[in-house]
Amino acid sequence: MRFLEKLAQAIDKNRSLLCVGLDPDPGLMPPGLGVFEFNRAIIDATADLVCAYKPNIAFYEALGRDGWDTLKLTRDYIAADIPVIVDAKRGDIGNTARAYARGLFDYFRFDATTASPYLGLDSLEPFIAYHDRGVFILCRTSNAGAADFQSLSCETETGVKALFEVVAGKVALWNKHGNLGLVVGATYPEELRLIRQGYPEMPLLIPGVGTQGGELADTVRFGVDAGRCKTIINSSRQVLYASKGKDFAAAARIAAGELRGRINEILAGSPS
Amino acid sequence: MRFLEKLAQAIDKNRSLLCVGLDPDPGLMPPGLGVFEFNRAIIDATADLVCAYKPNIAFYEALGRDGWDTLKLTRDYIAADIPVIVDAKRGDIGNTARAYARGLFDYFRFDATTASPYLGLDSLEPFIAYHDRGVFILCRTSNAGAADFQSLSCETETGVKALFEVVAGKVALWNKHGNLGLVVGATYPEELRLIRQGYPEMPLLIPGVGTQGGELADTVRFGVDAGRCKTIINSSRQVLYASKGKDFAAAARIAAGELRGRINEILAGSPS
Repeated sequence: MRFLEKLAQAIDKNRSLLCVGLDPDPGLMPPGLGVFEFNRAIIDATADLVCAYKPNIAFYEALGRDGWDTLKLTRDYIAADIPVIVDAKRGDIGNTARAYARGLFDYFRFDATTASPYLGLDSLEPFIAYHDRGVFILCRTSNAGAADFQSLSCETETGVKALFEVVAGKVALWNKHGNLGLVVGATYPEELRLIRQGYPEMPLLIPGVGTQGGELADTVRFGVDAGRCKTIINSSRQVLYASKGKDFAAAARIAAGELRGRINEILAGSPS
Repeated sequence: MRFLEKLAQAIDKNRSLLCVGLDPDPGLMPPGLGVFEFNRAIIDATADLVCAYKPNIAFYEALGRDGWDTLKLTRDYIAADIPVIVDAKRGDIGNTARAYARGLFDYFRFDATTASPYLGLDSLEPFIAYHDRGVFILCRTSNAGAADFQSLSCETETGVKALFEVVAGKVALWNKHGNLGLVVGATYPEELRLIRQGYPEMPLLIPGVGTQGGELADTVRFGVDAGRCKTIINSSRQVLYASKGKDFAAAARIAAGELRGRINEILAGSPS
């Protein structure tokens, strides 16, 4: 099944646009718990509340060789009907990008990945070539430093545009197989609105609600597509670390349920 | 010891600006050989001819869990006086970048890494914070798609500049601890000249000679710094796969020796 179909089915089944970021940080986790055990408990507690999971590979690389095994165990533990997006932000020249794609798509069997645009189309093609997988290109990221380059005014054939808008336009042009999307942070609502208005059918992965400060109402109103099947709103720390005690999984379930509910309430109050 | 000192000592000891990229691709390696055995033979054959090694992490990720172990074994096998630059091209928001930095600098103990500029300064700070390690920021990459974004004309306070020039300028400003450098591909000699002229003291990592087509004479004349201690010229496939037979290590030694020799000949013919 293609990524977008799988995503739409998961959104429909769980009535959820919420993605939980599986970013295990031993310094924030309940003491004495293994990383896979932590992830398993989070997944068990939230699997009927999410449209996707998004492990950021950095948190597994930080664990050394055990991290690699933990990431594989975690990916394999997630039920086949929930898409898993690896947040890898990869970007390298062609033969190297092919190696990354093999690792992420063949070995780990992730349904989608994030990728960096800086190296251009040929660095993305090895990922795009997997037509049944999704590729979310970084457009406007959620961090404070995003503006350093992403907001630069660039001269284009159709006038001056911010770099992140140029990225969005190129990705839309390159989307010949319908498996591309954009990463646009919740922390920049005006930029999110601009991208959604310009590309109403583009899948958007929106990180940055919760701990990073993105306001949920603006995120939903500005970011969700009309069909409500191509938008993924990610929360990591707000769910994972809702409690640092033994009740962490129950607290994560409550936090995820509240987020899902608030997103759906805001949608119910908006014209679809 | 700080990265640049270690690099300068290795350049001096081996009279070499050549870095060998340790990018093992089982499809190109002699059949029946394990990846670590391949790397070990390449290292044994070239350790007195190089100023650094540069494993690209993608080729290890493509191997799954064994790849992680192989990368650690490879890194640990390289003598302590030869700097090892991991080509990781990482770039993510602060808490995630910290996890990447822990993995690359604490677990693997790499001397330097490459990083992507797209997310801005706060995505680089966790790497920069390791003052004894080097961080090479992607500026103008060696691939054909580089121009898609890196050549965009950007409006700045000091006039219109290509994006890669803006990146170089910001990195120079951010280089408060003297541990930053730039990646500029050998396949774009005019861009390389522009960056070296603009930033004579900036460490440059220059991939793309050999298989990728970068012309060595231009690379050396345009890219090498006056002190000849802050420039790293990388070749991967031309050395690793000089022969696919049982003589691969001897052939790699010959290829590396010829490259080192040609670089030194070109330098000898240039005003220093």
